[in-house]
Amino acid sequence: MLFSVADQQHMAEAIALAVKGRFTTDPNPNVGALIVKDQKIIGRGYHQQAGQGHAEVYALAEAGDNAAGATCYVTLEPCAHYGRTPPCAEALVKAGVARVVIAMLDPNPLVAGKGVAILTAAGIEVQSGLLESDARALNPGFLSRMERQRPYVWLKMAASLDGRTALANGVSKWLTSPEARADVQLFRAQSSAILSTANTVLADAASLTVRQIQQQSITPLASGSLRQPLRIILDSKQRLTGEEPLFKQGGPVLLCYAKGQAAKVLAETDVAVEQYALAIAHNGRLALTELFAELHRRQINSIWTEAGSTLAGELMQQGLADELLIYQAPLLLGEQAQPLVRLGEYQTLAQVPKLHLQEVVTIGPDLRIRATFAASTLTATALQEEH
Amino acid sequence: MLFSVADQQHMAEAIALAVKGRFTTDPNPNVGALIVKDQKIIGRGYHQQAGQGHAEVYALAEAGDNAAGATCYVTLEPCAHYGRTPPCAEALVKAGVARVVIAMLDPNPLVAGKGVAILTAAGIEVQSGLLESDARALNPGFLSRMERQRPYVWLKMAASLDGRTALANGVSKWLTSPEARADVQLFRAQSSAILSTANTVLADAASLTVRQIQQQSITPLASGSLRQPLRIILDSKQRLTGEEPLFKQGGPVLLCYAKGQAAKVLAETDVAVEQYALAIAHNGRLALTELFAELHRRQINSIWTEAGSTLAGELMQQGLADELLIYQAPLLLGEQAQPLVRLGEYQTLAQVPKLHLQEVVTIGPDLRIRATFAASTLTATALQEEH
Repeated sequence: MLFSVADQQHMAEAIALAVKGRFTTDPNPNVGALIVKDQKIIGRGYHQQAGQGHAEVYALAEAGDNAAGATCYVTLEPCAHYGRTPPCAEALVKAGVARVVIAMLDPNPLVAGKGVAILTAAGIEVQSGLLESDARALNPGFLSRMERQRPYVWLKMAASLDGRTALANGVSKWLTSPEARADVQLFRAQSSAILSTANTVLADAASLTVRQIQQQSITPLASGSLRQPLRIILDSKQRLTGEEPLFKQGGPVLLCYAKGQAAKVLAETDVAVEQYALAIAHNGRLALTELFAELHRRQINSIWTEAGSTLAGELMQQGLADELLIYQAPLLLGEQAQPLVRLGEYQTLAQVPKLHLQEVVTIGPDLRIRATFAASTLTATALQEEH
Repeated sequence: MLFSVADQQHMAEAIALAVKGRFTTDPNPNVGALIVKDQKIIGRGYHQQAGQGHAEVYALAEAGDNAAGATCYVTLEPCAHYGRTPPCAEALVKAGVARVVIAMLDPNPLVAGKGVAILTAAGIEVQSGLLESDARALNPGFLSRMERQRPYVWLKMAASLDGRTALANGVSKWLTSPEARADVQLFRAQSSAILSTANTVLADAASLTVRQIQQQSITPLASGSLRQPLRIILDSKQRLTGEEPLFKQGGPVLLCYAKGQAAKVLAETDVAVEQYALAIAHNGRLALTELFAELHRRQINSIWTEAGSTLAGELMQQGLADELLIYQAPLLLGEQAQPLVRLGEYQTLAQVPKLHLQEVVTIGPDLRIRATFAASTLTATALQEEH
């Protein structure tokens, strides 16, 4: 299917609109829409928050009666179902648009094409597939949930140029720059959940909240009330007491412990805490696949993992990690310092985890390397950000 | 001093000309010259090989009588001494050029300014400092020898994303891609000498020669006969026999052993081998500072180091390494694999070696990271290359 340069420019703008919702739409996808008539943009919209209007609704509202005969560019197939809002496909029909250009079809195989069917049945010209990979990159987590029935998992690590995360004595503050640590906030803020361990919470007094998002990164809607992702803490031995900084602020906590133990009596906390029992896997650790299935049931799109070398290795070896983000500081820590990831011993290079580089940028004095695991079943996608 | 946009463009072209000599001028610097009259380039030249004409000579020859009243752009101050060729400053005077624009003065503090003095005495307008940092980047090795009386030292390493150079069992073939290994050839070919150890020569059957330079990287002059750098091998225990592949082809070999031993009787070799006795330093290893002083006496501008984690650590800790080049393959080898560099144990991050990122590019599927050591006394410079 052929698209004009103008089509591409308009869809690119619709994608840019969608990005504005990246901190707030979870668990819904980011979607943008543009209405164009006689080469003039007459309506713009993006999905801002679950429960509020879809992108097309805002774009149509701005266009008003002028939408009749116009073209609508939308990054995701218009919905066909009555949810909290009436179906967008019907709204487009009602507004009398002449043509709808769609970047990607609904990722849910059960509903894909139904929005298109409503439009074509009404005599609207429909084309899809324009800038599809860019549109997919808007929603790695949502697509993972819809297409793979599991969350998209980022593994964040901070290391030296020789791949070490801390000195032998445990010192790691601060390996990376303030700029790199601020960058981490942008990723936390886009994730449905943050996964970590009691070890990290205790060693770093980590609160794993979203803070310090730079002003230009915040949508008008989000600036007042940043969404705080669910914090999932693996604490098989129930070492946390409820008194750690983690429990003083931020989103709810899902505290995972090993089945067979009683839920722990925690100190009074300032945030909601749910204790969740998980089976012990054959490796003697909490069963991650069971956890991830539960997180899928809870509509968790994406997980931002901040933990140590052991959990990192476990996620990789179980094929549960989709993307590695390494903040690499221009330092060398030497052979006695702590390793990036614990993987056991390999005999040949054919056995080791392989990745594909997706992006390398400098963040202050540091390097940020993004690479997807070759074994990951999802098409390479990328979180949206501003730099 | 103000330069016009045309000045900058012409100097950039002179620098591009200088780059053409990068595989062949050693131990001389790379220099380019451009002669411009009425905004037209009437002469181009670059230094091709030690013993042959300087850049200005070629540019003046092309310009002929037309050089009178022209401007000469040259990347390095024209020479003022009678060497194998008459002084270029005098040649410019004789040709009657009206103006000379110089990127950088002669780096040798004993002669700097003498070329300029000849020109100004003849009434020629002289300006210097245009694109000086780019001009410096042409000749990191030559500048190091002139300004610091020691070679510029690159440390080449190949590692996984977690900073490991080989599996625990020693397997490292091939961690990086054929593209990365071809890239190494370009750096070898630009170096005065290649430094390695008996360990590497034995473990990898390394011959450390220049080969496989892609055609577009070779100057016409060099294509037939690539310059083969001196190969310096640290063999304190005299383990090499003369029968290794190293001795079958390539440049001469400087075989370093510990003072107090007799020179070893080697098998017949196909290349020139010089055995050189070095003192044992307080760390129990061959004295690198003594070696580097000797290499300076031999007019070695730059050293490309390909060795293991021990020599790498030693060079860093003695402040002898200027630049780290890591080819990082998108793999993870785990905590039992071999470390990038042996440095001992540090107690605080203030003690560890720090670097500044200079350049990050992808080479095939791999990443090439170039970083200069913060302690290095030379201004950050870069080898020239084509990509």
